[in-house]
Amino acid sequence: MIVRDLKDLKNTHRDIAHQQWTSVRMLLAEDGMGFSFHITTLATGSEHQFHYKHHLESVYCISGRGSITDLGTGETHQIHPGVMYALNAHDRHILRAEQELVMACCFNPPVTGDEVHREDGSYAPAAELEET
Amino acid sequence: MIVRDLKDLKNTHRDIAHQQWTSVRMLLAEDGMGFSFHITTLATGSEHQFHYKHHLESVYCISGRGSITDLGTGETHQIHPGVMYALNAHDRHILRAEQELVMACCFNPPVTGDEVHREDGSYAPAAELEET
Repeated sequence: MIVRDLKDLKNTHRDIAHQQWTSVRMLLAEDGMGFSFHITTLATGSEHQFHYKHHLESVYCISGRGSITDLGTGETHQIHPGVMYALNAHDRHILRAEQELVMACCFNPPVTGDEVHREDGSYAPAAELEET
Repeated sequence: MIVRDLKDLKNTHRDIAHQQWTSVRMLLAEDGMGFSFHITTLATGSEHQFHYKHHLESVYCISGRGSITDLGTGETHQIHPGVMYALNAHDRHILRAEQELVMACCFNPPVTGDEVHREDGSYAPAAELEET
């Protein structure tokens, strides 16, 4: 059994900080669960374009308020506590935080921790990272 | 993109109610994500013995307070918001809710929605269910 506390992972290699968002990787590929699990916080007023070409991701809103626009369909959905979105078709999307969003995220395949967000908003696949 | 609101799933086939806990399956196997994602609420004062012989599960505490005992090692861990436990070895365990616990749970392989908790606290594997 693995037991971890979010606050103990702050400022470790599992805590990834960008200018407008942070992500604490509570489970990574190395944990052998077959998915990774992250708590991601997006700053008030921030807007993010993401496109996970090589991963499926579900995102559940724990706190905050915002919206997501599916760039494939143009549809916008409101986000508040209790709302989950699942990118089951590698959907290119824009996420907006009207109030700081705290989100519980699951990735399949699991994130290894070595990925970087590329300019197009995607993570490289693990194989591609190994090549570079 | 799938978008679902917890409150819209209440009292649907995705909302499983037991005497001392409820579980809303926001993602099931049929959603094709490769994991399932549930919001599970355990009643204040309740105690539960679970043993997922055929699934790996991670559980993140959104709210409440309680503890988990690993019946393999005898160790007990406190649970409060921000704590996650992952049953990476099909760990037999007892979960206690001192205050109502709201937990975000990921299962691999994904739960189909047809499983039942058996007397030993496990879910049957999907294949076994199909046989019965």
